[in-house]
Amino acid sequence: MQQLFVIKIGGNVIDEKDSLQLFLHDFAGIKAKKILVHGGGKIATKIGDQLGIVSTYVNGRRITDEHTIDLVTMVYGGLVNKKIVAALQSRACNAIGLTGADANCLPATKRPVKEIDYGFTGDIDTSRLALTSWHLFLEQGLVPVVAPLTHDGHGHMLNTNADTIAASLAISLSKVYEVRLIYCFEKKGVLEEVEDNTSVIRLMDKKIYSRLVQEKRLFEGILPKIDNAFDAIDKGVKEVLIGDAKDLLRNVTKETVGTLII
Amino acid sequence: MQQLFVIKIGGNVIDEKDSLQLFLHDFAGIKAKKILVHGGGKIATKIGDQLGIVSTYVNGRRITDEHTIDLVTMVYGGLVNKKIVAALQSRACNAIGLTGADANCLPATKRPVKEIDYGFTGDIDTSRLALTSWHLFLEQGLVPVVAPLTHDGHGHMLNTNADTIAASLAISLSKVYEVRLIYCFEKKGVLEEVEDNTSVIRLMDKKIYSRLVQEKRLFEGILPKIDNAFDAIDKGVKEVLIGDAKDLLRNVTKETVGTLII
Repeated sequence: MQQLFVIKIGGNVIDEKDSLQLFLHDFAGIKAKKILVHGGGKIATKIGDQLGIVSTYVNGRRITDEHTIDLVTMVYGGLVNKKIVAALQSRACNAIGLTGADANCLPATKRPVKEIDYGFTGDIDTSRLALTSWHLFLEQGLVPVVAPLTHDGHGHMLNTNADTIAASLAISLSKVYEVRLIYCFEKKGVLEEVEDNTSVIRLMDKKIYSRLVQEKRLFEGILPKIDNAFDAIDKGVKEVLIGDAKDLLRNVTKETVGTLII
Repeated sequence: MQQLFVIKIGGNVIDEKDSLQLFLHDFAGIKAKKILVHGGGKIATKIGDQLGIVSTYVNGRRITDEHTIDLVTMVYGGLVNKKIVAALQSRACNAIGLTGADANCLPATKRPVKEIDYGFTGDIDTSRLALTSWHLFLEQGLVPVVAPLTHDGHGHMLNTNADTIAASLAISLSKVYEVRLIYCFEKKGVLEEVEDNTSVIRLMDKKIYSRLVQEKRLFEGILPKIDNAFDAIDKGVKEVLIGDAKDLLRNVTKETVGTLII
């Protein structure tokens, strides 16, 4: 099977112009087939403030009302996505920007209203995720750059978490590629001591993970990422790497940085 | 040769929600291969006003400074483009939204500064316009939905007139398809009397055109569109149809409405 990298960058890289350019330089240099999934960054909040669109949060989760979905469609699907695509094109990387609506590449369902109405938030229908378009793009040497947006098939765009999109793509595409899923974030990897960037756990399997959780050694914010990682591995992804965008991609074939989850 | 429709809609259709949905319904119903090129609409100006981005005009032409290019990238490439794509997907039309940066499908050059500096405005490099991606998309049954944006290959998005994009695509793709270029606008067609919607000129060739120009019978605003149309025909496009979006597409195969330019 051919190798495929599915790489997710978060908002912090996107917000800093120099970090983003450095990241894109490294990303463009990866020779294998690759997909980039990007988050949003603070720019949506900034532009939303200027437009008078106030985000509502319930239990720390953003509620996507009709003004907010227009805002994120503009900012994530337009501004952020096309800036990345144009920058990659300038580096001889044949990027193509996609939201889940484009070529129906990420069909989703509006999250059902239970205790909380999340509004225009989408959960990916992995069973309906057709590999045809993805395979076509990748085999033609195109590099998909995916905004954190899906659609419901009824004409509505939906806000969807970029980590989840990356994991869903990695899992689905592991049927046809040997997939490495890479989560870039602001830390050097999963840390044993959250304030100590030198305490990166180099290799993590389920046994090590459950011991660390039991000892309450891990930063709570990282737990969903690791759970996603193990879920991806259980469903066919070869390995998951978590770490700092700045040095992760340069060493992506050496496995000397970040946390490798197997 | 297979038939291909290249259809351009302008801002007025985009600004009116009902007109747009009606148009997209008709567009989705066209059985032949097709490309939709859309303009921007007033929404960019409205959002720009709210963000404090003031457009400068010289001789009636908008100057695209760095704030304006971000604005139109957001609004045309994000909001407008993805709304159209999601709406077409809901009508079983496998749309894919594109700017010129995506898959490098519309390489362009920043307009050289002479008397006027148009800023981030792009002129399409038709000689570098690779048919590979377009052909690939069309042959896979995808329906490109093109925002009026190109890129310079150096990391910058560029503002480009939608009429020009439609004509350039129609001309380039006429090497592999039998192309009909359709300009939808607010009039019923080219009118002999600009205020009289019943005075549509049904068929126009260069002879009729030069007579009407000589007699100063035509509305000045329509002249560039007709010049573009004849240029497209000279360069291989089979025919150009100009008229009202509302009734043009429904009758697109009957040739009973609008102005047919041959």
